[in-house]
Amino acid sequence: MKLTSRQLEIIKIVKENEPISGDSIAGTLGLSRATLRSDLAILTMTGLLDARPKVGYFYTGQTIEPLLYEKLYKKTVQDILLPPILIHQGTTVYDAVTNLFMYDVGSLYVKDDNDDLIGVLSRKDLLRAAISNPNTEKTPVAMIMSRMPNIITITKDRTILEAGSLLLQHSIDTLPVVEIDHPKKVIGKVTKSRIMAYFINAGNEIEKENY
Amino acid sequence: MKLTSRQLEIIKIVKENEPISGDSIAGTLGLSRATLRSDLAILTMTGLLDARPKVGYFYTGQTIEPLLYEKLYKKTVQDILLPPILIHQGTTVYDAVTNLFMYDVGSLYVKDDNDDLIGVLSRKDLLRAAISNPNTEKTPVAMIMSRMPNIITITKDRTILEAGSLLLQHSIDTLPVVEIDHPKKVIGKVTKSRIMAYFINAGNEIEKENY
Repeated sequence: MKLTSRQLEIIKIVKENEPISGDSIAGTLGLSRATLRSDLAILTMTGLLDARPKVGYFYTGQTIEPLLYEKLYKKTVQDILLPPILIHQGTTVYDAVTNLFMYDVGSLYVKDDNDDLIGVLSRKDLLRAAISNPNTEKTPVAMIMSRMPNIITITKDRTILEAGSLLLQHSIDTLPVVEIDHPKKVIGKVTKSRIMAYFINAGNEIEKENY
Repeated sequence: MKLTSRQLEIIKIVKENEPISGDSIAGTLGLSRATLRSDLAILTMTGLLDARPKVGYFYTGQTIEPLLYEKLYKKTVQDILLPPILIHQGTTVYDAVTNLFMYDVGSLYVKDDNDDLIGVLSRKDLLRAAISNPNTEKTPVAMIMSRMPNIITITKDRTILEAGSLLLQHSIDTLPVVEIDHPKKVIGKVTKSRIMAYFINAGNEIEKENY
């Protein structure tokens, strides 16, 4: 919702003089009470101002964000995707773990010779392999990874809400973002961590703008 | 923002007949155009209806949630905390990993004989130990865990925004929730995963209620 400059001025006057009567606001602005009626109605309806009979108007300090839902949830995967880390299927478990620490990521994607996505490795997959297998330097990741078609992917045109819902529904930490026309070509990733960071960063921005 | 029953009726009429002129809406309701003026002003200002000159009113399908920000971000840790998994400092790395899989969690908290929190073990800590140490069955977790005072904790009265900000700021996955008066007594945990699930579940609820 976009407030008019007059409405913003009313808010400013109320903030500085609360409680203040409608007549006093009108007087300050050099306008008639009738002229202000619809502005005051809108400002109280939306919860920005609070009106108490015989006392006057108060500023509630509430943020008006009729579009916050759309702003937060309807952004697309495109807006938040991270670069993926792809390793070859012949890579050993040991080297995969090294990559995980080197890039400080929570998951790795596995590709074949054509650069097609054929597997996903989570920290959990690697931990299970590392704790039970003394030969991590000889075991290829292809032996322990989750494989296509059991991998859930997403495209960049889907919303953040859809991406998050897929992650929850399938109890996974990462979603390879693939090309719309080539479901095995990875162009990015979306993770639980990334989505959480997105919501918290958005919250801190709103906080900074409004409080 | 709470809409009046007349405003809700106007929205219904517009939804079913869009585009529709202000006069037609007034006619349908048996009211004068003047009577409807402030309602229509409020509905267009808030973005619920869109008015196009010489065409009429449209329903935009937008959700009005002036308090969505407070609703989403100002809930407290109390509302979302999960039960923690606590293990004793003498537990071996191997057994810790077993616990991690058994409870399907991403982190474990380590306590001493007084049940005081003395350490945190992430999947990453355990993976690092498992890949480099062949003696996980003899190594106690106390040798590889993050230790107090390097552990960031939170109390249940803080907001979700504060919890998320701490997780991001310190690049950690989990926050032990401790008693306000006893900073070493763990009563729960908040994780990146939990916060992400909270936002996505909230989004899906709003979606279901409004669309």
